[in-house]
Amino acid sequence: MPARPDPAQLAAWRLLLEVHATTTELLERELVAERGLPLSRYDVLLNLAEAPEGRLRMQELSASVLLSKSGLSRLVDRMVEAGLVRRERCQDDRRGWFAVLTDQGRSALRRAAPVHLRGIQEHFARHLEPVEVEVLTAAFSRVMAAARVAVGDGPAAGW
Amino acid sequence: MPARPDPAQLAAWRLLLEVHATTTELLERELVAERGLPLSRYDVLLNLAEAPEGRLRMQELSASVLLSKSGLSRLVDRMVEAGLVRRERCQDDRRGWFAVLTDQGRSALRRAAPVHLRGIQEHFARHLEPVEVEVLTAAFSRVMAAARVAVGDGPAAGW
Repeated sequence: MPARPDPAQLAAWRLLLEVHATTTELLERELVAERGLPLSRYDVLLNLAEAPEGRLRMQELSASVLLSKSGLSRLVDRMVEAGLVRRERCQDDRRGWFAVLTDQGRSALRRAAPVHLRGIQEHFARHLEPVEVEVLTAAFSRVMAAARVAVGDGPAAGW
Repeated sequence: MPARPDPAQLAAWRLLLEVHATTTELLERELVAERGLPLSRYDVLLNLAEAPEGRLRMQELSASVLLSKSGLSRLVDRMVEAGLVRRERCQDDRRGWFAVLTDQGRSALRRAAPVHLRGIQEHFARHLEPVEVEVLTAAFSRVMAAARVAVGDGPAAGW
C-alpha cells in the first residue's frame, strides 16, 4: 500500500471537502433565511426526533450528530434556552441526563424539513445520475465500515 | 424537478456527511497525536503555502479554507501567537491586512504533510477503486459548478 494518495485520489478528497463545505453553507443560509434555524440545530432536532421517545443521552447525541460534535454542549444549552430541547435527569444514573425534544422543537423540525430537503435536492441530489448515487453509496459505505474499525482503535471509542 | 431527494439520494447525502465527519475526525486525531497540529491549522498553513509569497488577505483565506470558515479570525490569532503565521498590513488598504506564513509555519506544514497524506490514503483513498474516483470527481465537479453559481446569488458572494 502506497503511503500517500495519487493526484486523482487527492483531487477527489479535496472535492469531497469542497462539496461538504459549500453545500452545508448553502443549506445553512437557506434554513436560517427561511426558518431562522441554523443547520447545527436542525441536526440535533433530527437526531432526537429519530430516537425512541425523542430523547438521547448527551453521549449518544454526540455520537449521532454530524455537524457540531465539538461545542455540542453549548449548542444544546442554547436550544434549551430557545425551548427546542429540555433536559431530563437519568433515573439510573444520577450524574447523567437526557436531551429531550420538546413540542416546540418537533414543530420547528417539521417546518424546517421541507426547506432542508429542497436544498439537498437543489444543491446536491439533482446533479447526480442514479448510477453515480449507487457508486458513491457503495464506495462511501466501504469507507465508513473501515472508519468504524479505525475509530474503535482510538481513544474516542464511544463515538 | 421533484422538491425533495428520493431515499437513495438522501442516503448518499447522509453518507457524505458521515464520511466527512468521520474521516476528518480520524485525520485530526492522528495529526494532533503525531505532530500536535489541529486539522484547522493544517488547512490554514496549506492554503497560505499554496498562495503567492505565502500570503493571503483574510477574506481570501476565508474563501479558500475548507474547515474553519467560522472562527477563522480567532484561529489565525492563535496561530500568530504560536509563531506559525504573522500579520502584515496591506500597503494599498490601510484597514486590511495579510496573513503570512512564517518559516516556522512552513516547517510545521512540511513535518505534518506526510502524516496527513498517509491518513487520507489510509482512511479514504485506499477504499476507492480508480473508476469510483473518476465517478466521484465527475459528479462532485458538477455539484461544485452549480454551487458556485448558487453562492454567487447570495449575500456571501465573496466566498
